[in-house]
Amino acid sequence: MTLIKQETDKVRVFALGGVGEIGKNMYVVEVDEDIIVIDAGLMFPDDEMLGIDIVIPDISYLEANLERVRGIILTHGHEDHIGALPYIMKKLNVPVYGTKLTLGIVKGKLVEKGLDKSVDLRLIDGKSQLKIGTTTVNFFRTNHSIPDSVGVCIETAHGAIVHTGDFKFDQNPVDGVYSDIGKMATIGEKGVLCLLSDSTNAERPGVSMSESVVGQGIKEAFYGAKGRIIVATFASNVHRVQQVINAAQKTKRKVTVSGRSMLRIVSIAMELGYLHVNDGTLIDIADVDKYSDDEITILTTGSQGEPMSALSRMAKGAHRQITIKSSDTIIISATPIPGNEKSVTKIVDLLFRTGADVIFGQKQVHTSGHGYQEELKLMLNLMKPKYFVPIHGEFRMQHVHSKIARTCGVKQDRIFLIDKGEVIEFIDGDGKLNGKVPSGNVLIDGIGVGDVGNIVLRDRRLLSKDGILVVVVTLNKANNVIISGPDIISRGFVYVRESEKLLEEASALVTETLTKCMVENVNEWSSLKSNIRDVLSRHLFEKTRRRPMILPIIMEV
Amino acid sequence: MTLIKQETDKVRVFALGGVGEIGKNMYVVEVDEDIIVIDAGLMFPDDEMLGIDIVIPDISYLEANLERVRGIILTHGHEDHIGALPYIMKKLNVPVYGTKLTLGIVKGKLVEKGLDKSVDLRLIDGKSQLKIGTTTVNFFRTNHSIPDSVGVCIETAHGAIVHTGDFKFDQNPVDGVYSDIGKMATIGEKGVLCLLSDSTNAERPGVSMSESVVGQGIKEAFYGAKGRIIVATFASNVHRVQQVINAAQKTKRKVTVSGRSMLRIVSIAMELGYLHVNDGTLIDIADVDKYSDDEITILTTGSQGEPMSALSRMAKGAHRQITIKSSDTIIISATPIPGNEKSVTKIVDLLFRTGADVIFGQKQVHTSGHGYQEELKLMLNLMKPKYFVPIHGEFRMQHVHSKIARTCGVKQDRIFLIDKGEVIEFIDGDGKLNGKVPSGNVLIDGIGVGDVGNIVLRDRRLLSKDGILVVVVTLNKANNVIISGPDIISRGFVYVRESEKLLEEASALVTETLTKCMVENVNEWSSLKSNIRDVLSRHLFEKTRRRPMILPIIMEV
Repeated sequence: MTLIKQETDKVRVFALGGVGEIGKNMYVVEVDEDIIVIDAGLMFPDDEMLGIDIVIPDISYLEANLERVRGIILTHGHEDHIGALPYIMKKLNVPVYGTKLTLGIVKGKLVEKGLDKSVDLRLIDGKSQLKIGTTTVNFFRTNHSIPDSVGVCIETAHGAIVHTGDFKFDQNPVDGVYSDIGKMATIGEKGVLCLLSDSTNAERPGVSMSESVVGQGIKEAFYGAKGRIIVATFASNVHRVQQVINAAQKTKRKVTVSGRSMLRIVSIAMELGYLHVNDGTLIDIADVDKYSDDEITILTTGSQGEPMSALSRMAKGAHRQITIKSSDTIIISATPIPGNEKSVTKIVDLLFRTGADVIFGQKQVHTSGHGYQEELKLMLNLMKPKYFVPIHGEFRMQHVHSKIARTCGVKQDRIFLIDKGEVIEFIDGDGKLNGKVPSGNVLIDGIGVGDVGNIVLRDRRLLSKDGILVVVVTLNKANNVIISGPDIISRGFVYVRESEKLLEEASALVTETLTKCMVENVNEWSSLKSNIRDVLSRHLFEKTRRRPMILPIIMEV
Repeated sequence: MTLIKQETDKVRVFALGGVGEIGKNMYVVEVDEDIIVIDAGLMFPDDEMLGIDIVIPDISYLEANLERVRGIILTHGHEDHIGALPYIMKKLNVPVYGTKLTLGIVKGKLVEKGLDKSVDLRLIDGKSQLKIGTTTVNFFRTNHSIPDSVGVCIETAHGAIVHTGDFKFDQNPVDGVYSDIGKMATIGEKGVLCLLSDSTNAERPGVSMSESVVGQGIKEAFYGAKGRIIVATFASNVHRVQQVINAAQKTKRKVTVSGRSMLRIVSIAMELGYLHVNDGTLIDIADVDKYSDDEITILTTGSQGEPMSALSRMAKGAHRQITIKSSDTIIISATPIPGNEKSVTKIVDLLFRTGADVIFGQKQVHTSGHGYQEELKLMLNLMKPKYFVPIHGEFRMQHVHSKIARTCGVKQDRIFLIDKGEVIEFIDGDGKLNGKVPSGNVLIDGIGVGDVGNIVLRDRRLLSKDGILVVVVTLNKANNVIISGPDIISRGFVYVRESEKLLEEASALVTETLTKCMVENVNEWSSLKSNIRDVLSRHLFEKTRRRPMILPIIMEV
């Protein structure tokens, strides 16, 4: 046998988001000079990120290497995979690849931001083969809780880099579109250098329930209901929406849609042929009262207890068109995303209080879109990767997924449990960790991008705990005499009417401190201010055990 | 048969806390002139209650009827049943009844607040029979996740008012102390007018696992561990702590204790004979390194992800004595209390990152202290109450518990699904809802009680979202001339260095507005201020889509 040296290439793989967290998925594959980005998701802020609307990945690495970025591939249309696009496309003017439904949803978002004209959207499907830069990219169909999801296969000289996207194996998919197991097997046979695979449900043994089983559960609830039926689910779960519509049609009910995102996705999915509704089934929400209760289905958002959602407004009696009746049946066809448990149960409690029949937390009306352990093993066994990277999950889930990969024969030293920014470098097909690229959270509040930094957040946290106390004093600097103040104004600290004495004492203390400082000729403003801050802070903590932010303001005339 | 008119009495039952919520349990039973209080718990604040330390019930009804309050009965020593005591005993000087362990824990809390001398603590056990006022009160032993818990039976002329406390039926209690089913049956035979029963696990079918099964799970984890073992659990779960100590002793390990509340409860439980530890088992945390790793067990708090707890500090590498090694086995012997999911998984993720073996979320190492559906039915069947009140739970759980009571033969119109403050009145043994007493949340922040009202909280919420902008200007009121300012200081709004232009514009806008006002002779301060606020608010929202709190301060010289 003659040894022929294969074409050398350098491949780098890393995550800018989506590892060590659920959300803001963004992975980067570099094949020699080509940079290919997979997904561009957002994350919702955690409790610590006060006042923040959304969080997106730090893309400074991509900006710094802009001339090499060849395109962004979207695996499916969920917010945690596409939600950052409207924010980053101003900076990255590259083609965006996605399937029909994915691009349909993306287009809606771009229109809102006035960007639809400037972004180059390119349609793909599970059979597409493309050159992105000089690199060949293939796709394979997967099942997930949104139609039209794909995995990505990026060819390199030493085998493919495969990214599964979010996936499960559904043996009874609602739309009859199966995971393309054949193609996965073919990719595996051809040789996979590295597999990046979804870890969300790595902790769950067995196999996830098929989406069509949920259809049965929903249908049964429809058969049992006497009055109106209200179903809350994720707008993007088009299969679920389809099954609700099917159940409604089966039981001769009309369907009305409430909630902005539900209205938008239903209309996109119908237009693109992903949702099939008989003529006459959909009615306007204003017409609900023209039918008897047992002819009505209300399809709504709010399954995550979002305070402004349609379901939440119904629960609080604040929905303009729908007032819940005790004869209604309410189906929450979702489980709370981690962190949302409290807000969901709050809404569910309010719904129970209306006297309606609430179906919540029951297996039959929801299933996950992410594969369980046996499905993760199937993917591993189909792909037979040389290297493995568990992605899309908190560290714990990635960790368990690593163990699963071990049981499928991947060698321990070929599993990379990476953090954001950590680069896996493959030289001639041999991988190792090699350095880091910048990565992190960009916090978006209002229209500003990237300007809510740590200082602002730290101040919001301080303010949220014990409020603020502003001390204003006007000095005549020429002769060091207080000519007005000190005035003390507080917000979020104490109830002022009950605390007049406390605030008077504080004011006296400031006068005393200032006078003393001036006698001692401390008249650097910064020293005056820090003296006031120290004295007041000590005094207030002693009296109240609270530590408001203290803001001394010295005016000079 | 001669009809003899029974002694007439008026009985009133209501909750000041613990219904429609998990936490701050406080129930009131009035028998003619006697007011008897059952439990005095606290609740931890939810995310909306910014800066609040704890929440306790509003006891203004008790204060208004102080001369009739005969005593407070504590069913067991958990915070949600005793935690309000240190705050209310300054106002209610009445005897407090509890079992040995309960009073031991209470005493520790009162000492901290310097109240131990002034509170009249009276010891009871499951066999006690007391007169409280002129009312006879009996008790019965129950099983729960803390030893020495009891239910309460208050005699009235038309049958007993029974309060179960928190309970499960454990057929293999760790300490061999069984629920006193015999006594419950006797109480039931004698006649129960109204049963108030724990609804926490009303949604769970079947029977809760025995605490001793957890002992097996823990022991197995101990057998499998090669290095040190770190176990996090609730300090008050003395049975769990006992089982950890047993497993340690069985595998020839020493035990060291970390975390203030764990240290306190272990010492109280040992002193009072509820925890049995061989001589030489406990070692000081400073001596851990004198032993080899497989001889060490570390018992710690922090199973709820509390940011300052010992486990959390270990996870972050900030614990003074314990640094986690990759050879450690960490057992989280608890499940997250609703609302704590995110903080728990955050800590668990950090622990996984250390490379240690983390046992979390596995059935075998935790069980609930609250009975499941079949246990709730057993209680109902033993007590055979005429009236039923599901307590201790969110509305949803109370609702499901009502349905369970229906299946046990309680009539629908004799089930009261009450809210806080709603009074059930029994006249001659016939019950109906009759009015409300004041009830609500008292928010405690620092040493103040009850002075963090809605205005303060609302301000904290506003401040936490977009921060604050203070505008100060000094005017000469005689001639309406600005002599200093406008100065603009912001906190938690924008990163000042990147927003100089924005703030300069804002300042110019204020000058313009003030000048215009003075020309128009608007020199009422309140009008000036509201003008500044309106103009600035509009401008800043347009530029940033944020709405900071705006605080105009006008100084006059």
